Amino acid sequence: MTIDPVALSADLIRCPSVTPEEGGALVLLQSLLADAGFECARVDRNGTPNLFARWGAKGAARSFGFNGHTDVVPVGDARAWGHDPFSGQIEDGVLWGRGAQDMKSGVAAFAAAAVDFVRETPPDGAVILAITGDEEGSGRDGTLALLDWMATQGETMSVCLVGEPTCPEVMGDMIKIGRRGSMTFYFEAEGVQGHVAYPHRAKNPLHGLVDLLGQMTQKPLDPGTAHFQPSSVQITTVDCANPANNVIPARATATVNIRFNDAHSSASLIDWATALARKITDQSGVTFALNPTVSGESFVTPPGPFVDLVANAVQAETGVAPELSTSGGTSDARFVKDHCPVVEFGLVGDRMHQVDERVPVEQIETLKRVYTRILQDYFA
Amino acid sequence: MTIDPVALSADLIRCPSVTPEEGGALVLLQSLLADAGFECARVDRNGTPNLFARWGAKGAARSFGFNGHTDVVPVGDARAWGHDPFSGQIEDGVLWGRGAQDMKSGVAAFAAAAVDFVRETPPDGAVILAITGDEEGSGRDGTLALLDWMATQGETMSVCLVGEPTCPEVMGDMIKIGRRGSMTFYFEAEGVQGHVAYPHRAKNPLHGLVDLLGQMTQKPLDPGTAHFQPSSVQITTVDCANPANNVIPARATATVNIRFNDAHSSASLIDWATALARKITDQSGVTFALNPTVSGESFVTPPGPFVDLVANAVQAETGVAPELSTSGGTSDARFVKDHCPVVEFGLVGDRMHQVDERVPVEQIETLKRVYTRILQDYFA
Ligand SMILES: [Zn+2]
Ligand SMILES: [Zn+2]
Repeated sequence: MTIDPVALSADLIRCPSVTPEEGGALVLLQSLLADAGFECARVDRNGTPNLFARWGAKGAARSFGFNGHTDVVPVGDARAWGHDPFSGQIEDGVLWGRGAQDMKSGVAAFAAAAVDFVRETPPDGAVILAITGDEEGSGRDGTLALLDWMATQGETMSVCLVGEPTCPEVMGDMIKIGRRGSMTFYFEAEGVQGHVAYPHRAKNPLHGLVDLLGQMTQKPLDPGTAHFQPSSVQITTVDCANPANNVIPARATATVNIRFNDAHSSASLIDWATALARKITDQSGVTFALNPTVSGESFVTPPGPFVDLVANAVQAETGVAPELSTSGGTSDARFVKDHCPVVEFGLVGDRMHQVDERVPVEQIETLKRVYTRILQDYFA
Repeated sequence: MTIDPVALSADLIRCPSVTPEEGGALVLLQSLLADAGFECARVDRNGTPNLFARWGAKGAARSFGFNGHTDVVPVGDARAWGHDPFSGQIEDGVLWGRGAQDMKSGVAAFAAAAVDFVRETPPDGAVILAITGDEEGSGRDGTLALLDWMATQGETMSVCLVGEPTCPEVMGDMIKIGRRGSMTFYFEAEGVQGHVAYPHRAKNPLHGLVDLLGQMTQKPLDPGTAHFQPSSVQITTVDCANPANNVIPARATATVNIRFNDAHSSASLIDWATALARKITDQSGVTFALNPTVSGESFVTPPGPFVDLVANAVQAETGVAPELSTSGGTSDARFVKDHCPVVEFGLVGDRMHQVDERVPVEQIETLKRVYTRILQDYFA
């Protein structure tokens, strides 16, 4: 009997695993994998739940890794959903629910493929699943904790596939071979409070901040590079909360997120913003704290054997030649890439994080076939 | 016996008349003025307290008006004050408290001058006090209500002195003969929400808003005019309250206050902002609601007999030749100017609206002498 990836996806959706809640999702997977002969361990860190599972020998020369997450983002306005986001209902061939795309179905498809594969054609090597319950949150104690623990235990992966949704429009149209870097500035601008009628006695921090934000956003950072699209600078919030329209405030804040390609590093961007801010301070007296946080530098797994293997499997099962892309948001591939070559392939992600997240069940079945073929080809 | 303007100022400070509270301040003044033979009437509108008082005949050919307010702005951080802001303490010749400068002492100085003047040298004409309890709030039912009521009652002023603090540094250094206009835009920018990693699927309202605010603030509106300093555009707040640094928000707001001279009108400024916003909408798809509110157009009482009378009295009592200015914030002179020539003169205003607001008692005594001389000269 083979594992039905659609039923498993629906079971996982029924686990209310909104970050950081485990919600029963990892418990369910552990039970399935342990029954199938996988050695399992919960690798929780600081309350964040994580699951490690290995079939085959520890430290095998050929060890195929899979990484994914069972946590999901909040449902938002629950009343706006056409179906209960945690009911896992299937209607007219479509599975509804939070995590249907991102990425409970991806985890289910890989778990189903792995269990069937090791039973039907036991490989000469190991198959590892490293599943976290915190990819949507800070991620500090998620995949990173799994990788830290694996290093101390001598658990290794030769290659790793991350099962995040990667396809923009149709199944098979995109593999991700790298990611842009991501960093965030939490700007704090400080001036001198005063009455609007006497601006010469005040220093308006909003004028300095608007100047800085304008200079950061009104020209493109770059035109893109060989493997990357252009970098993007987005202001995500500006706040001051001054209720008085006759008062120049003393302080204001703004958050700016930058998704950057390999023409930049977080260090070069910090230098850039620092220089812009310093010039405005010299002109206006408004001072800035930049408070940068770096989620990850840009990285790429250049086209080669592993990328080719995944791309060929995708094309064989979907009939689509996948684009090799580095677009989109960050993923835990940014942690995995420090340990082994990493490639990402998964579902169409057009409804992730949205109301009425859902997926055609046929896509989940196709995804299981792609993952199965990748395992077969890797161990062939 | 003459009225001590310092003791009266302290008594008024002890009335906790934070807008819109009457706090006993108008009751106290009414009692004093009625005892001195003034006809008094409370002219409250929509719960806003106002006091009208007249000595002499209604509709007299020469009728000298005084306008002021007894309400005060909130104390802010009460713990930051060196003295209880409502205790009216006098220490080392300084009177402390909220309203010490703006403008309970101004009201006290004029009331004291008026009561003593009509008793000692009863004039051929009328002396009117129009005192509001809402100048610091919306002002919709304050001086405006008094002027509306006076019009229906046949109460007229030939000239009017507003007793707001006008002196930037020393007693006598400035008379205000007009005011800049004031208007506020409450901008609402609307775009399309999305994930920061996919900015082409979103429209960032903050980028449009920063562009608009930058264009409004980074070049001066004008270099100033004959009686006016340059116009000033101040952003007083920008708000979005988006907690997610990976989400492009759908909406953001900003407030911009403009103090404008007679090179502009509120209508011309609305046209200007509308054109800037439309251009940004055309380029970015971000749309704007402007939500302008107009506090008042610019106005000026040109140098002439009344301005000269006030300036001469100021110079005679203070030894300082006052500058004739139109600088600073709005005041209720913007309403009075529709009824009769209006000039403003009062204390040094360097601590108004601040923590530890206070005034040297000597300034209050000087102010009473200035107001007395103005009454004497006007009725001479
Ligand atoms: Zn995900
Ligand atoms: Zn005032």
